[in-house]
Amino acid sequence: MTDFTDGEKRGFYKAIYSRRDVRSRFASRPIKEETLVRILHAAHHAPSVGFSQPWNFVLIKDAGTRRRIKESFEEERLVSSRLVEEPRRSKYLSLKLEGIQESAVNICVTYDPTKFGPFVIGRTSIPDAGLYSVCCAIQNMWLAARTEGIGLGWVSILSNKVLRETLGLPEHVVPVAYLCLGHVDEFAEKPDLEAAGWLQRLDLADVVYFERWDGRNDGSWGVTEEMLREGLDYA
Amino acid sequence: MTDFTDGEKRGFYKAIYSRRDVRSRFASRPIKEETLVRILHAAHHAPSVGFSQPWNFVLIKDAGTRRRIKESFEEERLVSSRLVEEPRRSKYLSLKLEGIQESAVNICVTYDPTKFGPFVIGRTSIPDAGLYSVCCAIQNMWLAARTEGIGLGWVSILSNKVLRETLGLPEHVVPVAYLCLGHVDEFAEKPDLEAAGWLQRLDLADVVYFERWDGRNDGSWGVTEEMLREGLDYA
Repeated sequence: MTDFTDGEKRGFYKAIYSRRDVRSRFASRPIKEETLVRILHAAHHAPSVGFSQPWNFVLIKDAGTRRRIKESFEEERLVSSRLVEEPRRSKYLSLKLEGIQESAVNICVTYDPTKFGPFVIGRTSIPDAGLYSVCCAIQNMWLAARTEGIGLGWVSILSNKVLRETLGLPEHVVPVAYLCLGHVDEFAEKPDLEAAGWLQRLDLADVVYFERWDGRNDGSWGVTEEMLREGLDYA
Repeated sequence: MTDFTDGEKRGFYKAIYSRRDVRSRFASRPIKEETLVRILHAAHHAPSVGFSQPWNFVLIKDAGTRRRIKESFEEERLVSSRLVEEPRRSKYLSLKLEGIQESAVNICVTYDPTKFGPFVIGRTSIPDAGLYSVCCAIQNMWLAARTEGIGLGWVSILSNKVLRETLGLPEHVVPVAYLCLGHVDEFAEKPDLEAAGWLQRLDLADVVYFERWDGRNDGSWGVTEEMLREGLDYA
């Protein structure tokens, strides 16, 4: 039924289930060039609407750039902390949420809607589809990094305006993600925010509907609640 | 340097490089429940901003629902074809772009920004980060489907308004993707649009910048143009 051996499937699912959003404990050693290139190739082989490949990857090591981005993070974190009440505010402010300066490489992933001209198949009815393609590339990158022993953390607490200015992004280009990559000696068993008791993982059964929004499982699909709750053969 | 064996890495990269956007040649046999659940679990284990898990998966087999979505596709395809000049218009109209009715299962993936209340870590400065998480889940699903021998095609030529009405989505929920899944006997070697000569694959070297937008490779990174053009160890 599939051309994947059981071992190949296990390798794939290992990446899916052991991938983490890494913000701390980055090792200081650099990422080998070959490793970085493998991760970028994986990103570049993501699906894209109308095969438009609308992504760019800006690789960053420069200390000055990182300092400005880190300052933006600090500022935005403080502003956002005012949106949440104590005791959650103190908890929020105690969390380690980025590794901008400790990681080996930062990568800004951007969306350029002008590639290949204005007519892109599949983007005419839903313009955001181009942006969605860029996210698929980011997820490929994230998983590939995991298989290479590289931790990746997505920093979304920052100002896109500062990011634009710092990297010299043209007006028409959208910054989608600011990522920190580096070796880690260990990947946490659970997401940091789950381990910290910030939020719990939802049951799969609670996010799956049948036939329409809020549609309950009437049994006709052969999918049991138990399968949804526990069916992780490869986890 | 990594806890992945070479065999596990090969399994992972096989999924990355052999995944396709599938729109034709779906086999009529159903997807086993266990397989479908494995694919959904992989999606549910995607990263999400602030661990908000803002996705829902609406599983669809109903023939009436599919007919309405197919009608919307036909209508949008015709409208969008007027945006492109001949001879590309005829070429566009000749392409097979969806498998809504031939595939075993359709899945609508949605974004619910209200999960876990208004304050989501990492979504305060960049509100779209929640939407990006949903796209990461879709890419997990796509890759997992590939390892299971299941083809997946993303249909973005349709009206989100029709989708909302047909599936009964609440006002605050955003439809992100409409996916068609089913067994295929073979995955194409290249993307359909590349094979059809619609667009070519870009070189990785053309989408990578160094230190800032448009920043050229000055050699200090140790990454050569040749590595970017050819470095596909696992492809």
